[in-house]
Amino acid sequence: MLSRRNTWLMCIVIGVFCTGASSVDAKIFAALALVLVGAKLVGDVFERLGQPAVLGELLAGIILGNLTLAGVDGLQFITENQQIALLAEIGVILLLFEVGLESDLVEMARVGGAAFMVAVVGVVAPVGLGYGVHALFAPDSTWHAHLFIGAVLAATSVGITARVLKDIGQITSATARVVLGAAVIDDVLGLVVLAVVAGIITGANTGTSLAAFDIVLIILKAIGFLGGAIILGRPVSRWMYRMATKLRVRGVLLAVSLGFCFALSYGAGAAGLAPIVGAFAAGIVLDALTYQDLETKEHHSLEHLLHPLTSFLVPVFFVVTGAKVQLSTLNSMSIIGLALALTVVAIIGKQVCSLVAYGKGVNKFAVGLGMIPRGEVGLIFAAVGKDLSLKGVPIVDEPTYAAVVFMVMVTTMITPPVLAWALSKDKTDEESASSA
Amino acid sequence: MLSRRNTWLMCIVIGVFCTGASSVDAKIFAALALVLVGAKLVGDVFERLGQPAVLGELLAGIILGNLTLAGVDGLQFITENQQIALLAEIGVILLLFEVGLESDLVEMARVGGAAFMVAVVGVVAPVGLGYGVHALFAPDSTWHAHLFIGAVLAATSVGITARVLKDIGQITSATARVVLGAAVIDDVLGLVVLAVVAGIITGANTGTSLAAFDIVLIILKAIGFLGGAIILGRPVSRWMYRMATKLRVRGVLLAVSLGFCFALSYGAGAAGLAPIVGAFAAGIVLDALTYQDLETKEHHSLEHLLHPLTSFLVPVFFVVTGAKVQLSTLNSMSIIGLALALTVVAIIGKQVCSLVAYGKGVNKFAVGLGMIPRGEVGLIFAAVGKDLSLKGVPIVDEPTYAAVVFMVMVTTMITPPVLAWALSKDKTDEESASSA
Repeated sequence: MLSRRNTWLMCIVIGVFCTGASSVDAKIFAALALVLVGAKLVGDVFERLGQPAVLGELLAGIILGNLTLAGVDGLQFITENQQIALLAEIGVILLLFEVGLESDLVEMARVGGAAFMVAVVGVVAPVGLGYGVHALFAPDSTWHAHLFIGAVLAATSVGITARVLKDIGQITSATARVVLGAAVIDDVLGLVVLAVVAGIITGANTGTSLAAFDIVLIILKAIGFLGGAIILGRPVSRWMYRMATKLRVRGVLLAVSLGFCFALSYGAGAAGLAPIVGAFAAGIVLDALTYQDLETKEHHSLEHLLHPLTSFLVPVFFVVTGAKVQLSTLNSMSIIGLALALTVVAIIGKQVCSLVAYGKGVNKFAVGLGMIPRGEVGLIFAAVGKDLSLKGVPIVDEPTYAAVVFMVMVTTMITPPVLAWALSKDKTDEESASSA
Repeated sequence: MLSRRNTWLMCIVIGVFCTGASSVDAKIFAALALVLVGAKLVGDVFERLGQPAVLGELLAGIILGNLTLAGVDGLQFITENQQIALLAEIGVILLLFEVGLESDLVEMARVGGAAFMVAVVGVVAPVGLGYGVHALFAPDSTWHAHLFIGAVLAATSVGITARVLKDIGQITSATARVVLGAAVIDDVLGLVVLAVVAGIITGANTGTSLAAFDIVLIILKAIGFLGGAIILGRPVSRWMYRMATKLRVRGVLLAVSLGFCFALSYGAGAAGLAPIVGAFAAGIVLDALTYQDLETKEHHSLEHLLHPLTSFLVPVFFVVTGAKVQLSTLNSMSIIGLALALTVVAIIGKQVCSLVAYGKGVNKFAVGLGMIPRGEVGLIFAAVGKDLSLKGVPIVDEPTYAAVVFMVMVTTMITPPVLAWALSKDKTDEESASSA
């Protein structure tokens, strides 16, 4: 008894020290080392196969996240650890900020009509197809559940596509602008669809009708944020960099630029949108002329300063995204059947987008492919469905959730190679068309 | 009732979206924007006053962390948020890695004797003085409590000193080597002292004697890690970079270097040392020749790649460190008296180090000043003391804890200006001495 207490207290003392004079568990650093080196090793294999490096990072994640199947335990925490989640989130935020910096507000506005059409079709078609597939596979479920699965299929995850477009050097093409613009609008539409569907289900449960005011509020907040960022972003950023140029302390360019990016990420989050939408907006409204003086003064370009940050943190995002794929959930034929059907309609549903995409130099086929990945947005939708229930029955049950996870996994993995292929095929055509 | 449930579910849906399709709270990005911009604004004022920028970052933190006193709420979370804690920890790890890269193993070994003497004296003197002060101010406490407060005064926090030495461009001086070497040895000694003192207290509580085996184990682990890093670090890193040079994927230099740094940070943590000791060791054992080929291949130097990472994350560490200073804890004269007394002996205790420092070009006075900051290491010691109790009485009570916090605050804030002053005074003398 005495000895046990002694040991126990010693453990506290040693435990405190093992966390290294702070509240951070040292095993996180082991995980980060594995993530960074693993991403490069598997990324190298894919590079040699002529595939985008991001595919290698996703696969490195799938390997790290499923080592339990090979009997190796203790790495599962990278998908659940909140601290690594922040690093991954900052990674995808900086990626979208970088992509936004390479995009131009005027150029984006020019493809606005096409992007809007693509976004609307890219929401309507998957909702309809998802409804049909779920009605076929789960005929006993109510129409509410069918509609919810349709909503799960609607949201595009822009991170993967943006990364592929960067990897193959096409981030400034007309096609890229349509896909990125559509993805931002998709985020607003997805938010609305989920709110409406969840509202209908809650209403059916409680006998009340959908609170129209709440829905309008959600839409107004999202539009208010995007409108505010576009209208106020340029004058505010100009004033900010003019003030910043007067500071004598070093490293102002990076600090102010990251500050602006994070402030808009927060604003997007507060408006109910994904923070990455804010980061993308921050990048778009920033004009290279605005921070030119500061670049000259500090002898560094913003691009060169951001590069090491993204090359550290972006792989963390993609490896963690890969690690969230739990292969063990696909453990029966009926789940695999539903999973395959959902995956097929998820892909087909977004190909309809290519029918409505228009514009000079726009590769319609690539637009449809660029809208395919669902990423973690689909997983969040499904997780909300797991928590919602209609008369005691959960809207999304465990097998359906596993099928959604499979759909997310395949759509995420399939996009890099097919998009790279579609764009490289007519790379020269497109370049001559957009410069014409 | 119906309406409440509807609202509640809507809140879940919106709440999930506000976290932005991930488990990261968007307000963290608002905090990061504030931290980055605040650090530069206050840093600029100190730059103009001729003070190290780090002092401005600490003060920006104190302002952000104590805004409640001015009636502004909601920013307290930056000191408690685990996700921001990881960013801060990575910041100080990368700072020490960078410092280690600028140091050389052979040069460090040359000052090994002096560093060891400085470290031993820098532990013994504060333990004795701290014992005396606590015996004077709290005569009713047992000698165990006196000894514990002495131990709290022993540990040096190397982050501040390393940053000041970098800020004023003296990181490669003989003085810097002695202080950095002593700080690493201090970390080992501090670990041993805390384990011994906690062991004695636990033993007194339970009637058992100190488990000598456990203490020996702690020492062996720490020495084993440092010895292993020094002996194996160079051949392992050479092999690693040789393999890495063969990879075709981009960004290998940064990924492998960070991987090596994080792996050794983990190793240090697993051996019971602070992760920053591992990061410093990683930097020291890496020889610039080892990664030269990779630098040539990628057209980037490791220094240039690390610079944006440290200029983003290091200020996060110092602002958070500043924000942990809770001015409201100093609310009575008796606490302020103990706090002042502890602060005075904390400073004097380390000045004894200057008596034993030796070596060509070593500024003895600056060595003593460089050992002053206690940073968060002292806070962790005190926190352990709050959880330890002897016959029901806590070893460190709330007022004593507040006094320790004050001591940490003052030693942290005082070091940048006095060390910069002491080193700039004879900057030219020293440079000529070390090049002689």
